[in-house]
Amino acid sequence: MSIRQILFLPHNQKISVQDGANLIRSAMEAGIHINASCGGEGLCGKCRVIIESGTIGDGISEKLSKSDVEKGYRLACRSAVTGDITVRIPVESSIDTGVLNARSSPRRTARIEEMNLDDLKDQGLFIPPVEKKYLELPEPNSQDRLPDVTRLVSFLKLNHGENRLVVRLPVIRKLPDVLRQSSFKITATIARPVQKGRKSHIINIEPGDTADRNFAIAVDIGTTTVYGQLIDLRTGNVLAQQGEFNGQISYGEDVITRIMYAEKPGGLEKLQEVVVKTINTVIAKIVKRAGIDREQVSSITLAGNTTMTQLLLKVTPRYIRRSPYVPASTLYPPIHASSIGIALGDHVTALVYPAVSSYVGGDIVAGVMGSGMYRTDKLTLFMDIGTNAEIVVGNKEWLACAACSAGPAFEGGGIQFGMRAAKGAIEDFSISPVTFEPMNITVGNVRPKGICGSGLIIMAAALLEAGVIDNQGKFNRDLKTPRIRKTYGIWEYVLAWKEDTQIDRDVVLTEVDIENLIRAKGAIYAGCQTLLEEVGMKLGDVEQIILAGGFGSYIDLEKAMTIGLLPETDPGRVTFIGNGSLMGAKMSSLTNRIRKDVVEVTRKMTNFELSEVPSYMDHYVAALFLPHTDVKQFPKLMRRLHR
Amino acid sequence: MSIRQILFLPHNQKISVQDGANLIRSAMEAGIHINASCGGEGLCGKCRVIIESGTIGDGISEKLSKSDVEKGYRLACRSAVTGDITVRIPVESSIDTGVLNARSSPRRTARIEEMNLDDLKDQGLFIPPVEKKYLELPEPNSQDRLPDVTRLVSFLKLNHGENRLVVRLPVIRKLPDVLRQSSFKITATIARPVQKGRKSHIINIEPGDTADRNFAIAVDIGTTTVYGQLIDLRTGNVLAQQGEFNGQISYGEDVITRIMYAEKPGGLEKLQEVVVKTINTVIAKIVKRAGIDREQVSSITLAGNTTMTQLLLKVTPRYIRRSPYVPASTLYPPIHASSIGIALGDHVTALVYPAVSSYVGGDIVAGVMGSGMYRTDKLTLFMDIGTNAEIVVGNKEWLACAACSAGPAFEGGGIQFGMRAAKGAIEDFSISPVTFEPMNITVGNVRPKGICGSGLIIMAAALLEAGVIDNQGKFNRDLKTPRIRKTYGIWEYVLAWKEDTQIDRDVVLTEVDIENLIRAKGAIYAGCQTLLEEVGMKLGDVEQIILAGGFGSYIDLEKAMTIGLLPETDPGRVTFIGNGSLMGAKMSSLTNRIRKDVVEVTRKMTNFELSEVPSYMDHYVAALFLPHTDVKQFPKLMRRLHR
Repeated sequence: MSIRQILFLPHNQKISVQDGANLIRSAMEAGIHINASCGGEGLCGKCRVIIESGTIGDGISEKLSKSDVEKGYRLACRSAVTGDITVRIPVESSIDTGVLNARSSPRRTARIEEMNLDDLKDQGLFIPPVEKKYLELPEPNSQDRLPDVTRLVSFLKLNHGENRLVVRLPVIRKLPDVLRQSSFKITATIARPVQKGRKSHIINIEPGDTADRNFAIAVDIGTTTVYGQLIDLRTGNVLAQQGEFNGQISYGEDVITRIMYAEKPGGLEKLQEVVVKTINTVIAKIVKRAGIDREQVSSITLAGNTTMTQLLLKVTPRYIRRSPYVPASTLYPPIHASSIGIALGDHVTALVYPAVSSYVGGDIVAGVMGSGMYRTDKLTLFMDIGTNAEIVVGNKEWLACAACSAGPAFEGGGIQFGMRAAKGAIEDFSISPVTFEPMNITVGNVRPKGICGSGLIIMAAALLEAGVIDNQGKFNRDLKTPRIRKTYGIWEYVLAWKEDTQIDRDVVLTEVDIENLIRAKGAIYAGCQTLLEEVGMKLGDVEQIILAGGFGSYIDLEKAMTIGLLPETDPGRVTFIGNGSLMGAKMSSLTNRIRKDVVEVTRKMTNFELSEVPSYMDHYVAALFLPHTDVKQFPKLMRRLHR
Repeated sequence: MSIRQILFLPHNQKISVQDGANLIRSAMEAGIHINASCGGEGLCGKCRVIIESGTIGDGISEKLSKSDVEKGYRLACRSAVTGDITVRIPVESSIDTGVLNARSSPRRTARIEEMNLDDLKDQGLFIPPVEKKYLELPEPNSQDRLPDVTRLVSFLKLNHGENRLVVRLPVIRKLPDVLRQSSFKITATIARPVQKGRKSHIINIEPGDTADRNFAIAVDIGTTTVYGQLIDLRTGNVLAQQGEFNGQISYGEDVITRIMYAEKPGGLEKLQEVVVKTINTVIAKIVKRAGIDREQVSSITLAGNTTMTQLLLKVTPRYIRRSPYVPASTLYPPIHASSIGIALGDHVTALVYPAVSSYVGGDIVAGVMGSGMYRTDKLTLFMDIGTNAEIVVGNKEWLACAACSAGPAFEGGGIQFGMRAAKGAIEDFSISPVTFEPMNITVGNVRPKGICGSGLIIMAAALLEAGVIDNQGKFNRDLKTPRIRKTYGIWEYVLAWKEDTQIDRDVVLTEVDIENLIRAKGAIYAGCQTLLEEVGMKLGDVEQIILAGGFGSYIDLEKAMTIGLLPETDPGRVTFIGNGSLMGAKMSSLTNRIRKDVVEVTRKMTNFELSEVPSYMDHYVAALFLPHTDVKQFPKLMRRLHR
């Protein structure tokens, strides 16, 4: 077969492919990202590229306008490479990693709460999972011929009261030379059992005294982003933190498209490989930034949703998306980090957070642990809002949870100009009640190219309060402004004219977008109601709300209540914990008490399948208004609207 | 550098090497064996090769006679390849693998004892370490959404009373598809904890009902040979057995030369690799012969001396041969067989026998376990005779052990025509008391090429009883026979004239050979005496003797007592257990009771360093006669000699 050359711009990267190769797959394999919410299935129309030279087979789609096609736009997923070509990936089709680790601080959000090592100690929750001890062993002689391992174990027993020690083979391999190179002065790393009465493991030995260099890594594996923290196990301090887009994005934006990819031959292995690559990138950066020796990391804890967890562990997620939606496992044994490709020492154990069900995963369990919800007396509503909104209600006595398919509206999916909260996304918005002219504020303060989830909520609330849309999300057709118009039969509001954008097209919000938003927020609100009713309570009984998740941190509380996404309550009762998954992973790194409790908590969390609860559909339909058909639930908003 | 060609005969194998390469190393790297007791150090003179064409640098040694050199003989270890050459490896420099698995049955040896599954059951020692259970699980539906792992574990708990189960990651990986491909009818393999109260592990699952296919492998890793057995875990029957020369032989014949090789760069890795290769050859053969599926092997148990064990586990043996002779460990944790390269399923755990000290290894502990010595009331003397003779005395209450450096005489080392018990080795001998003409019986009934250890003992005893040698091992110079002669100043007895041998040289037994034999047997006898005295007993107190080891099986008991290798006793009190190491490995495969007891036994075995006991040297010097200076210890022999 013939070989074809592709030059990617603006990367200026050249690759060779077989004649007839699919363009988006070729890019993926070369590590070049092109947006594709649908995973390259030809459905979403987001993988727009410009063919700057050469010709390409197909690539045409109803997702491209005639003028797009004339300008050279093609859909990469539909394109076959049949000659040497130059391909430009336009800004709207690229991810923007710069924004991940440098976002402005959240505004108008709930107060932030985080636990630290001192809190843990105060609460009697501190049981270090990995300790280092510096030891000066006696040297062997003709009167003392103890084997090296026996020498080490006996010394720890005699001088440190350590019983029931297991020495792993890699330590036995290192021991003879390390002992003699360091005159029998060594530091032993000891991993403690989570369950009382089980054995401690000597997992590493180092020459000399390194007892003050003992670190852990906590990782949140999100569908979109992977965040990691480097933690000093002596102080509990976070020494460095880093976020990276999950490399799996190139293989599908949401869990369903990932699962579909994983079902293809070699797909599971590929997805496992790329997420580990992302994790290793995160590790490399935080280790470097903190200036520590990677070999001195003693443990890693990872949390992710059920699909992310199964992909990480190379466990087929096939049955997660098939009725009756059964995960392979909820509990995973500790494994050697290196055995799944994580670039840490052979002695490092990886702890993976347990899940509850196919759609309430380890990230939510981690949030419940990290937020301390499982130890509170107060009736708590915990919400993590993303493509799936996971809801947990309960307190230290009981916990109930459910996932509701909110759809991808909050992450930019199903919204014509929807995008993640990356540079150019409109994240704040206001509208003149007189001229109906908008004020857009974008991430990075650049010209807009789309709308992110938090911006969408603010827009809908502002348009509702200004009377631009009604309680069904329909535009007031009578308003005198060119910004409200009908295009291809669909009413829309022009947020930014073509010349003011980065993308050479008008950025608009359509009635279809608003409908999708209403469905998303309705599903979540109805989910909370249904779950509470199933345990014999109602929204009014809730004493505190905990918001978790990257998206949650940018929710404008007041606006979220205005559109009926959150129940109307005193904002003082709402706590924002940020990345709950990362928080929980960090807590597990710090203390075995959390590692022990989490198994108990996972068992305690009763999972409800909302689709099986008859009242859910009623609550959902009732919530398909702004804010709700039952306006009595939103008294403050009603007073404001009537003013 | 120039490349040189070597053609090896009779293999007819051609290899290319760098100019100047060492001949024996080049052969090793190509997998062609040349005997080298000294590990290629130029000391033993056994790596004789014939240069049939081309010339070679050096290769001359005082180990070669003038006429040898004229005939083209060179020592491979001293030869540098400086041109294209043809090298013939003569029969005396090659190993002969054919004999390993097809030896004639032992004659005039002690009775053989072996325990089987029924004995274990009778003695209440049977606790199966790995079980298989066939399970028909309920299928999930919208009312029963248990995760796959929970489904399996709950079912085992409810229907089989199984508690405290751990499911390993590889099983979790297999579970979703296997369950659905087999309509939720599966067989689970469950590994039981050795210590009570610890958890059982589900190590494998298979579709359908395979509960009747559950096998184990037991392996003895000897310095010279590796033996393996395939065991049916339902019946305890041995389905197949195989012996192979340990591939490490090419890197040195004894443990010391192996350790020296392991200390070279890459040496440890190489020795680990080749012994695993040998083990895998053994496994392949027994699995094939028994006609079973390799995936249905559930466990493997390995026993070897301390050096073999450390090499297998890639733990440097460097300090075993350096004062104060400390092993890295005596106890090793169970490991995944595949993690050290053993070609069995990922679920298979390898159990490695614990050792006592650098020179009393897992092979001896296995013998103590397999022979049942650790459970007897009788004062027992256990001996495993080889290059090192290991001695254990004691009973169920206490155990004491020691190693004595017997030297390699019994394995052919230090004996001019010494060789292993392979084809052509003289293994039986008698002498006419009138003509002093010999009758040689060789392994395989072919023309002799050397003398094996058991033959050597018989020769010395026969020569002593015939008055050909005196009690110091010196030839009677007055006998009228051309077979007794002096060559290069050393007296010798011609066992076979040149024309009657395979090797075109007279096969002789020299006074130096007999001296080496006397030193070897003296060291062992003195070792037994010293060890018994150290625990306040004497040889006369011994109630039974257990002989273990491949060599032991061919010892002629009467002759061994005649030369004073064994104390004079009623042959009915002597039991031969054959390969005690393999026997112990097999017992551990069959029952967790032995796996549990062995840790206790290892702790109980008090190790004595004979070189540190002052009386040892006195006993040794006293034993340097045939049979002993203190003839009162051999009354029967004395009566016979005086007749």
